[in-house]
Amino acid sequence: MRTAFYISDGTAITSEVFGHALLSLFPAELEHVTIPFIETIEQAEQLKIVINDRFAASGQRPLVFQTFVDEALRDVIRGSEGVCYDFLESLISKVQQELGMAPVPKTHRTHSMHEKTYDYRIDAVNYALANDDGSNMKDFDKADIILVGVSRSGKTPTSLYLALQYGIKAANYPFVEEDMEQLQLPDVLRKNKNKLFGLTISAQRLSDIRQQRRANSRYASIQQCRHELNQVEQLYRREQIPFLNSSQLSIEEMSAKIMAITGLKRQRH
Amino acid sequence: MRTAFYISDGTAITSEVFGHALLSLFPAELEHVTIPFIETIEQAEQLKIVINDRFAASGQRPLVFQTFVDEALRDVIRGSEGVCYDFLESLISKVQQELGMAPVPKTHRTHSMHEKTYDYRIDAVNYALANDDGSNMKDFDKADIILVGVSRSGKTPTSLYLALQYGIKAANYPFVEEDMEQLQLPDVLRKNKNKLFGLTISAQRLSDIRQQRRANSRYASIQQCRHELNQVEQLYRREQIPFLNSSQLSIEEMSAKIMAITGLKRQRH
Repeated sequence: MRTAFYISDGTAITSEVFGHALLSLFPAELEHVTIPFIETIEQAEQLKIVINDRFAASGQRPLVFQTFVDEALRDVIRGSEGVCYDFLESLISKVQQELGMAPVPKTHRTHSMHEKTYDYRIDAVNYALANDDGSNMKDFDKADIILVGVSRSGKTPTSLYLALQYGIKAANYPFVEEDMEQLQLPDVLRKNKNKLFGLTISAQRLSDIRQQRRANSRYASIQQCRHELNQVEQLYRREQIPFLNSSQLSIEEMSAKIMAITGLKRQRH
Repeated sequence: MRTAFYISDGTAITSEVFGHALLSLFPAELEHVTIPFIETIEQAEQLKIVINDRFAASGQRPLVFQTFVDEALRDVIRGSEGVCYDFLESLISKVQQELGMAPVPKTHRTHSMHEKTYDYRIDAVNYALANDDGSNMKDFDKADIILVGVSRSGKTPTSLYLALQYGIKAANYPFVEEDMEQLQLPDVLRKNKNKLFGLTISAQRLSDIRQQRRANSRYASIQQCRHELNQVEQLYRREQIPFLNSSQLSIEEMSAKIMAITGLKRQRH
């Protein structure tokens, strides 16, 4: 099988995103190998041997997705039997021309703790963990957003992704079975009503997810799921709380849509 | 100020990574605007107006980083006053030539729940949350890795990132003050010794982090931090547990290094 390499002098996370986006367009079966932190000529020479070995073993030239900043390292890999793809190189001169300024190459420029917004993101992750599942409602005043919904509708992973990707402080609050008759907004949520964002989900998918947690329980029954979802959707409409259905959305898609709908500003750049 | 737009028919996460990697090379001040889920010609036409308005207001052509799969949408934006950058377009034909197959463009091909590994990643996030901070040691047998270290050395955010980015099930276990005299591996860890990975950190940084949590406490004192770190580092060496110092590393860098050092295979592609 042909191999795809994702390599960099840093984490190689950018190389992975870049290569994955390109390869997702092709119905090809490949073996994927990520090798981060290639920081010296010796390490690059070693990696060149690995790439060449893959070529010798399979007879197919490996695809190499790379984002080196250091030209000397890039040149070593380019001397391998791999086919090298470098999106930075092909676009740097165009950006340079438009901005009218020269690039200032630095290694570890992305995904490092020296990025301006790193501390925001880590604070937001800690905030999401401390304010998960209605566990600590006294800090809701500090939230950028408060996700609400029934148990297992996707609040916690979405809160974490909003924190990690966007530096958004997301608390979350579950509506539980006991609240379902005459569902009202508790005072702690009413006080922060402009921060509320509702999640919903199809009753079938919710029931499937709950079955994994407590099989054959009332909690997981389709009737109970339908009842709870009806109640919360009525509440969202009555209180004019914006909401989304998570049934067909990944947490990345949920988060991007929530950012777009609410107009929250990311703490990243 | 000049504006950079990150746009897509999907989440625009790839556009952001791509644009951010390129712009991090330039010392330019820009305003950053992400607009995801441009899925119709009407939405693209609206966006074109927004881009043109930015040009009219600032006199500087916006930079537009885009990853549209649909050519009709791409063409609308290309008709704007923005300068469009598209790394997919410039490389698709090269990949096509090497693989000897035509691309099969699909929207929402990345960052959707239909990606093969989405369920792995969400399961891993739920696992990390349920096995955080030594809270549920009975499931350590199911871990891919168990992060160990003193309180506030970075175990929890690193566990979550390993789950979200790589689909790795990472538990974590804290060595607490009470264990510090004659620190030994508890049985539950000894049973899973081949999965252990230690974190350490500089005493000064640990003390700074702990001060934020409990100011002027014994817990946060530099003496106590130094003592605990000495004990755990001795344990790591005595038991031959691989370990990393997190003082100068982001959680992305920690996670990438842990993957490389342990040889864990990601559950992603």
